[in-house]
Amino acid sequence: MQSFKELAAAFSTRFNTSHFPTEPRTLYAANDYFLKLGGKHIRPVICLMGNELFDTISLDAWHVATAIELFHNFTLIHDDIMDAAPLRRGFETVHYKYGSNTALLAGDVMLVAAYEYLNKINSNYLKPVINIFSKTAREVCEGQQIDMDFEKLENVSLNDYLKMIELKTSVLLAASLKMGAILGGAGEGNQNHLYEFGENLGIAFQIQDDYLDAFGDPEKFGKTAGGDIKQNKKTFLLIHVLETANEQLQKELKELLNNNAEDKIERVLKIFKDCNVDEWSKELKHQYFNKALHHLNEVAVLNTRKQPLKELADFLIQRDY
Amino acid sequence: MQSFKELAAAFSTRFNTSHFPTEPRTLYAANDYFLKLGGKHIRPVICLMGNELFDTISLDAWHVATAIELFHNFTLIHDDIMDAAPLRRGFETVHYKYGSNTALLAGDVMLVAAYEYLNKINSNYLKPVINIFSKTAREVCEGQQIDMDFEKLENVSLNDYLKMIELKTSVLLAASLKMGAILGGAGEGNQNHLYEFGENLGIAFQIQDDYLDAFGDPEKFGKTAGGDIKQNKKTFLLIHVLETANEQLQKELKELLNNNAEDKIERVLKIFKDCNVDEWSKELKHQYFNKALHHLNEVAVLNTRKQPLKELADFLIQRDY
Repeated sequence: MQSFKELAAAFSTRFNTSHFPTEPRTLYAANDYFLKLGGKHIRPVICLMGNELFDTISLDAWHVATAIELFHNFTLIHDDIMDAAPLRRGFETVHYKYGSNTALLAGDVMLVAAYEYLNKINSNYLKPVINIFSKTAREVCEGQQIDMDFEKLENVSLNDYLKMIELKTSVLLAASLKMGAILGGAGEGNQNHLYEFGENLGIAFQIQDDYLDAFGDPEKFGKTAGGDIKQNKKTFLLIHVLETANEQLQKELKELLNNNAEDKIERVLKIFKDCNVDEWSKELKHQYFNKALHHLNEVAVLNTRKQPLKELADFLIQRDY
Repeated sequence: MQSFKELAAAFSTRFNTSHFPTEPRTLYAANDYFLKLGGKHIRPVICLMGNELFDTISLDAWHVATAIELFHNFTLIHDDIMDAAPLRRGFETVHYKYGSNTALLAGDVMLVAAYEYLNKINSNYLKPVINIFSKTAREVCEGQQIDMDFEKLENVSLNDYLKMIELKTSVLLAASLKMGAILGGAGEGNQNHLYEFGENLGIAFQIQDDYLDAFGDPEKFGKTAGGDIKQNKKTFLLIHVLETANEQLQKELKELLNNNAEDKIERVLKIFKDCNVDEWSKELKHQYFNKALHHLNEVAVLNTRKQPLKELADFLIQRDY
């Protein structure tokens, strides 16, 4: 059994090759550029871990892991166009560097390349793997649309926000694990528990992300605290406060959102604390984290085989920076 | 054996259903809207014809034909964004009606839906069909990039233009036929002859399209003649004249391209005629058309089975409007 760190290093080495034809350069330079910006490779590695849970890692699992990473990068390139984002991982986004049209096409061929990698696997597994991959791809697009819709709404319910996070973030983690498990010969029960593990872990991770943006230590977190507050971004915290705070605090909060006072972040944070949203979100995160661990426990393989996944979950969730 | 008209009617009936989930409406309304705008369905029907050449049309061929039509619509939605086109088939484009971000996502899920239809076919055919489908999808994206690159170049060689047309237009026709043939149990030789037939037919069709834009009867053609000339669009005609005209005519032509004189279309057409480009392009079209027919003749099935494809080729190419 290999740790996340070991597998991430192995994946990076394998992934660090050209995944596209040489010509036309005007198109594929954009793809190569974006892939060179790196990334944490959580999704492909979690696929490898789902595979190793049941067997030694197969060549098929490496192909699917590569497809997953290409798919993830396709979503980032297109999301950056939609968000008009100038930077990604500290570097120019594809559409800033190569123009929106080339970025659009670079995303399109990245998605096609993902399917080309999927198509390399053993024929027996092709149909179930493409099935879950395509369903997930569709759901991630749906999540992105719902997220954009939310920007235009004044009120979003916690349930609707949860559903959006599930689609936009969690299902890809869940599906990555499940595809790895399928290729390892896992039965349906085990596949489903792993899917649930990934889905709940993804939600816990997003709750933590929202929490850290408000309350994290900027030095450890690597970005200025309160970015979400500044942009009026819907987060677990904001939605909860808007749903539960008393009338006076709600009024104050809405006024703050509608103006861009210099001390907006400070004052919103004060309301958050007055509503105990920091404690509430920690508690919510732990609920989802525990639900995730429950499903991992239910997977019918030896406990020792689950160790790397448990360590990864701990690492992803219990970090306090 | 069914004619193009019969198969087109049957395909339209089958295709006229919802290919997407109901929610989120903000996304899928865009997909449903665009598919309702219709289209000639040449590509899916040619897939069915490739299939019927060898056997009665199978359920798998209907799935692949649907995937091809969804793929074609994906390219149209994204191309319209790139061209900032306000209209498609006389109606508002998706990005005009729903915004660029939703149009981008609508295209993305359209491509994913195409793969979902492919994944419905018999497992035995899945790998070869996805193989050619993905290769073709990649090539169509490459063709679109090269086309955009050409807009920025002053000179494009006839060879480079041909290569672009092959990628942007011909390979999808060729691949549609080939996938239909694969599903009909065709051997490799027959598959390849059909591919060549489709590819050469596609080029002949584009030459005719370029010809008709300059010399077609506007009343029969349904659009104003000279649209390509007005926009300085690279076409078989313009490229040939720029490659072959004498110095004096080249100078005159380049001046016309750099200004937008009121009589630009008339004067460019006069140069085209002085260079006999109308005759030249008819001759070139016939060369590709004949090459296409040669490959169709080489397909080892009874001549009577080829009749619908021959009629379609005649209809597509010999029309003079």
